[in-house]
Amino acid sequence: MNVKGKKYRTIWMEDSSVFMIEQNLLPFEFKIFEAKTYKETCFGISTMIVRGAGAIGAAAAYAMAQAFLEAPENGFWKFLEKAKKDIEDTRPTARNLFYAVERVFEAGKISVENALAEAQKVANKDAEDSQKIGKFGSELIKDGFNIETHCNAGWLAFVDHGTALSPIYYAHYQKKKVFVYVDETRPRSQGARLTAWELKNENVPHVIIPDNAGAFLMSQGKVDIMIVGADRIAVNGDVANKIGTLEKAIVAKEYGVPFYVAAPTSTFDLECKSGKDIIIENRSQDEVLYQTGINENGEKQKVLVCSPGSDAINPAFDVTDAKYITGIITEKGIIKPDADEIAKLFA
Amino acid sequence: MNVKGKKYRTIWMEDSSVFMIEQNLLPFEFKIFEAKTYKETCFGISTMIVRGAGAIGAAAAYAMAQAFLEAPENGFWKFLEKAKKDIEDTRPTARNLFYAVERVFEAGKISVENALAEAQKVANKDAEDSQKIGKFGSELIKDGFNIETHCNAGWLAFVDHGTALSPIYYAHYQKKKVFVYVDETRPRSQGARLTAWELKNENVPHVIIPDNAGAFLMSQGKVDIMIVGADRIAVNGDVANKIGTLEKAIVAKEYGVPFYVAAPTSTFDLECKSGKDIIIENRSQDEVLYQTGINENGEKQKVLVCSPGSDAINPAFDVTDAKYITGIITEKGIIKPDADEIAKLFA
Repeated sequence: MNVKGKKYRTIWMEDSSVFMIEQNLLPFEFKIFEAKTYKETCFGISTMIVRGAGAIGAAAAYAMAQAFLEAPENGFWKFLEKAKKDIEDTRPTARNLFYAVERVFEAGKISVENALAEAQKVANKDAEDSQKIGKFGSELIKDGFNIETHCNAGWLAFVDHGTALSPIYYAHYQKKKVFVYVDETRPRSQGARLTAWELKNENVPHVIIPDNAGAFLMSQGKVDIMIVGADRIAVNGDVANKIGTLEKAIVAKEYGVPFYVAAPTSTFDLECKSGKDIIIENRSQDEVLYQTGINENGEKQKVLVCSPGSDAINPAFDVTDAKYITGIITEKGIIKPDADEIAKLFA
Repeated sequence: MNVKGKKYRTIWMEDSSVFMIEQNLLPFEFKIFEAKTYKETCFGISTMIVRGAGAIGAAAAYAMAQAFLEAPENGFWKFLEKAKKDIEDTRPTARNLFYAVERVFEAGKISVENALAEAQKVANKDAEDSQKIGKFGSELIKDGFNIETHCNAGWLAFVDHGTALSPIYYAHYQKKKVFVYVDETRPRSQGARLTAWELKNENVPHVIIPDNAGAFLMSQGKVDIMIVGADRIAVNGDVANKIGTLEKAIVAKEYGVPFYVAAPTSTFDLECKSGKDIIIENRSQDEVLYQTGINENGEKQKVLVCSPGSDAINPAFDVTDAKYITGIITEKGIIKPDADEIAKLFA
């Protein structure tokens, strides 16, 4: 995708180095982080220089490939076993990561070159799946559509293209006129910070809206479709995603606005029967109480924005019941959020 | 109400001075602003040292009374006509203000003392109505209830007690166990800044929640009742209130959570047939793009919290269809949001 007119992926490998866009600095600064060793790539994952399911999977695959390049002749496999463990420990809840590391580790049993090729395959597959989601999803977007999205399910969360934003980019390249309402997505404001930054770089017309304004815009007939990403999808079609997704889905249904979830098939958790099985992570209250931004002198400042001494709660995700979801856009096509259609995807 | 254990009204008059809590400085600093002349009180209104329908009405009444004290013998009525105009110009869209000024002006035709007494009556009536709303509304709150509220319809917006928060205070004084989920209320964060500040000073247990978390909490059965204020109520029961109110009302209905609006009868606009007649004010995008808070050194800082160069939209209010509202709590009792019951209020 484009940054100031130049093509980038979120993460890539050249020779023995892994390069990643420094997502901690966005949207105020654009920098590339170079990880020369697998340990530096691990640092990039654990400190969230790279974030998002797809991008983390690719980072882990590349890190494992780097370890193959670094492993000494003496104690080759001992080094690699240790490296595998180090990589897995960076983000222990990221399921993609384990899968990606395993694949590269196994491929390396044939040769180091094979490990490198496998890591590249993992990254390419992620980018290709995202692009397919874009192609399928773009069929839902008519010329002149106003699209609302929540959080950031853009290319920054994957290797390229993204999920919820991929159909928008695809429609935009097809010269369809599109306009995006970007939910701010408090408390971490990934919409206002990352989605807006992506759209601006791709020249897609958009505005940031307070999360509170969603129902108002829908009540005025100003939203033609809503597309969001997913963190996890149960086999009955219930979707765990960023906090606030459920609220938008209910409101969209009330106003007859089609509500789509875009996600690769790797997001389905076949062991998860329904949304009720999903435990919601509570994050630090400081993400609600404080906000970080830049002041008029361009200095980064963390400021308390709430009444001093009051506490906050910060559930990171919610679960949207399948009944509020119009469809799920995957790399294999668009399906209805029900058990039969989901089962067919994996048949 | 209480501030650090001491009783305060939002605004009051002593001798020829009007005193008001400096709401621009809250929640980070608590100061009283003394307006020695009617012009200083006008300054307090126009710069939003005092805010909220009820509090503005009282401020205007007091300002008019001050003008009577200040008027010179020569050109007495000319001075007062000019003062009346000055006060009316401070916040030309605040309907309460015109009504209050008129009442004091008319009362002054009998005597200056009568004008002073009338201004006091305006302020007292506001506080008493708020207290009645609290008493009626508290009957809806059972021991152990979890209550969600949006924005600030507390005592800071009135002379005392408030509207949406008044039933909560009343229940709390009755020793009912209550817990309040305070919607942050982006973009101006009146919930996180003012409602949380009020509740903390009254020792009412509460937490601030991101606006996005409302549906999640309701889906988990954690909200027993939601109470909000109102900026304007149409004769068919549609309610204009802070942006995001509509979204919460729809979600509350979906989960069977009773959704109440608390407002004095002066909030009903008998010339407004339905919510469709209400024009929504768009405020500056800077309220979305920037946030003000205090940094670790205690310095106030205004910081950009969104991606640089993206625009935002900032509709200040939305209109909630009467069908989502369980009831309206007024100083005359609780009514259903329909034309017949509203007409009876004014019969």
